[in-house]
Amino acid sequence: MSASEDTPTSPGPLVIGAQGSFAAGGTVVITPGVFDPVNPTDPAGQTLHGDHVRVSYQIPADALALPLVLWHGYGVDGTCWDTTPDGREGFRDIFLRRRRAVYILDQPRRGAAAKTTVAAEVTTATMEQMWYTQFRFGVWPGFFPGGQFPADPAAVEQFFRSMVPDTGPIDTEVIVSGVSAAFDRIGPSVMVMHSHAGGFAWLTAIRNRNVKAVIGLEPGSGFVFPEGEVPPPTDSGTGPLAGVPIPVDDFEQLTCIPIVLYYGDNIPTERHEVAGLDNWRVRWQMAGAFVDTINLHGGDAKLVSLPEIGITGNSHFAFADLNNRQIADQLSQFLTEKRLDEGTVSNKPDPRGSDE
Amino acid sequence: MSASEDTPTSPGPLVIGAQGSFAAGGTVVITPGVFDPVNPTDPAGQTLHGDHVRVSYQIPADALALPLVLWHGYGVDGTCWDTTPDGREGFRDIFLRRRRAVYILDQPRRGAAAKTTVAAEVTTATMEQMWYTQFRFGVWPGFFPGGQFPADPAAVEQFFRSMVPDTGPIDTEVIVSGVSAAFDRIGPSVMVMHSHAGGFAWLTAIRNRNVKAVIGLEPGSGFVFPEGEVPPPTDSGTGPLAGVPIPVDDFEQLTCIPIVLYYGDNIPTERHEVAGLDNWRVRWQMAGAFVDTINLHGGDAKLVSLPEIGITGNSHFAFADLNNRQIADQLSQFLTEKRLDEGTVSNKPDPRGSDE
Repeated sequence: MSASEDTPTSPGPLVIGAQGSFAAGGTVVITPGVFDPVNPTDPAGQTLHGDHVRVSYQIPADALALPLVLWHGYGVDGTCWDTTPDGREGFRDIFLRRRRAVYILDQPRRGAAAKTTVAAEVTTATMEQMWYTQFRFGVWPGFFPGGQFPADPAAVEQFFRSMVPDTGPIDTEVIVSGVSAAFDRIGPSVMVMHSHAGGFAWLTAIRNRNVKAVIGLEPGSGFVFPEGEVPPPTDSGTGPLAGVPIPVDDFEQLTCIPIVLYYGDNIPTERHEVAGLDNWRVRWQMAGAFVDTINLHGGDAKLVSLPEIGITGNSHFAFADLNNRQIADQLSQFLTEKRLDEGTVSNKPDPRGSDE
Repeated sequence: MSASEDTPTSPGPLVIGAQGSFAAGGTVVITPGVFDPVNPTDPAGQTLHGDHVRVSYQIPADALALPLVLWHGYGVDGTCWDTTPDGREGFRDIFLRRRRAVYILDQPRRGAAAKTTVAAEVTTATMEQMWYTQFRFGVWPGFFPGGQFPADPAAVEQFFRSMVPDTGPIDTEVIVSGVSAAFDRIGPSVMVMHSHAGGFAWLTAIRNRNVKAVIGLEPGSGFVFPEGEVPPPTDSGTGPLAGVPIPVDDFEQLTCIPIVLYYGDNIPTERHEVAGLDNWRVRWQMAGAFVDTINLHGGDAKLVSLPEIGITGNSHFAFADLNNRQIADQLSQFLTEKRLDEGTVSNKPDPRGSDE
């Protein structure tokens, strides 16, 4: 195992050149008529702005040229990149210390981007033990021996309280167009995406050339393939998983940028009775087919099993696990190998501004 | 008008000693039974954690002893203290530069604290022109002459997109107990609250002695009074406003801390046909009765009309208006007068930790 690039114990202050947040993309609903300020609860002539992305950013004073754009997965918002459940620095701070501007997304209809033009029922189902298990902290109420998720009831509670419901339906076009609008504003950058962002992320990278590389942390759904090259669907304890056919010209956009996918530990290789674990068996398999197909088309994609390179015990939330600095080192090595850490910036983007 | 305490044009980097976020307070729902990982969608034995506050904090390297705790109003979340709608620094950055640790709340069932144990229907009503007018940016679609809200369509769009719906019912005890739990973790600090936080803020300040002062920015509801001293209810274009009776012993907790309330411009003194403006006439009046009652009971409360001291044009969101540094100067003067800017801290709170 490599030593971490920075010291976890007393990291010293962060020197931030600029920070802030803005909304990008989204839609507008208009009720016909004329607004009457004497009867303001009449919707006539009134609007609803929704379906945007919320972007929160920090730019170190000595930032490298290419920012990281961090995109959460299912059931959480941008907060997931922040403090870890046991109170350590998450990827936000770790990469700020490595001179990266960090842009954190809340995808449409989640968290600070919860304002939606189509409502969903807010879930109040009791299902945290399902997520605990599917996120491979362990099989509830246990932890995996040698697991990297902090085995502390207070950390588990903080994790559960970091989750947020969707306020509207998951809509691929709403999400992809919103995030693409964010990349228009952010400019050339590296996408770091987790889990359920997977399929939306590939479609965004195809649509927006500001995405200069994609780092996938256990992408779990929406693997795209050229039409005619989609692998057969597979079945798992959480249901079937099918690849998504797209035109080959679109797919080949993904061959123009470096891509790396990381998967953690305790992913079964044979059918497993625990549904939440078996879920990852087929996703890992399809990630392999996805990477192979990109490379067959002349691309530069890599699939990394963390335990196979000696990094053991990682959950689905490797970026918040006890060894998250070691995981960050892997990303840093990738960024260096692909020459994505060259150049510097000193300017602050206009939070409302037009495209660069 | 006084000059601003810092330079708005090129403020230089922020030096942050620590930053992060945590959940505080909240409730847990448990479905009886035993969790079965083979059938994980069965709710038996599963939990739902919700109704907590989310706290996002930044602590300057040279922080003064007493942090500011910023509590949003209705229809927005903690993002409101961040970048202004037209891309300037908000109160978060302004007070970080003035050596304040800044803790920003998302109240239960809003934004990053959206996880709720009781669902509300997510609104998709078109009602932004109502809010625009009630927040005194102008009477839609106009802006007030000399108004301080940025008269720029892009800024108005950013404002509308900064709004977020509630995911559960507004519940006083849920909110007050959640925010009080946050103050347990934050420690002694100054509450800065806006608008709808009003009534919840007074009850929190009564409950939690870590609240060392309250700065109210146009508190709009829930004015508390000793039982038997509640002024008669008043009516306005947005409906009646009544004071909230509480035991005198509770009320007198508010006489132990300095309190200041600021109200902006374009608040009518006579009944006004525009409902959203008339709304503030009765709130301003009741704020006066509230302050008088505190002082009658031996307290130290002050009501400030910004235009009466020469600061004109402010909307309901004075902390994001064009002159927000001038507004911040008012707060800074209050903090100095009340000796709330003495001492320094260098330690980072344990984000999961127990009470101090």
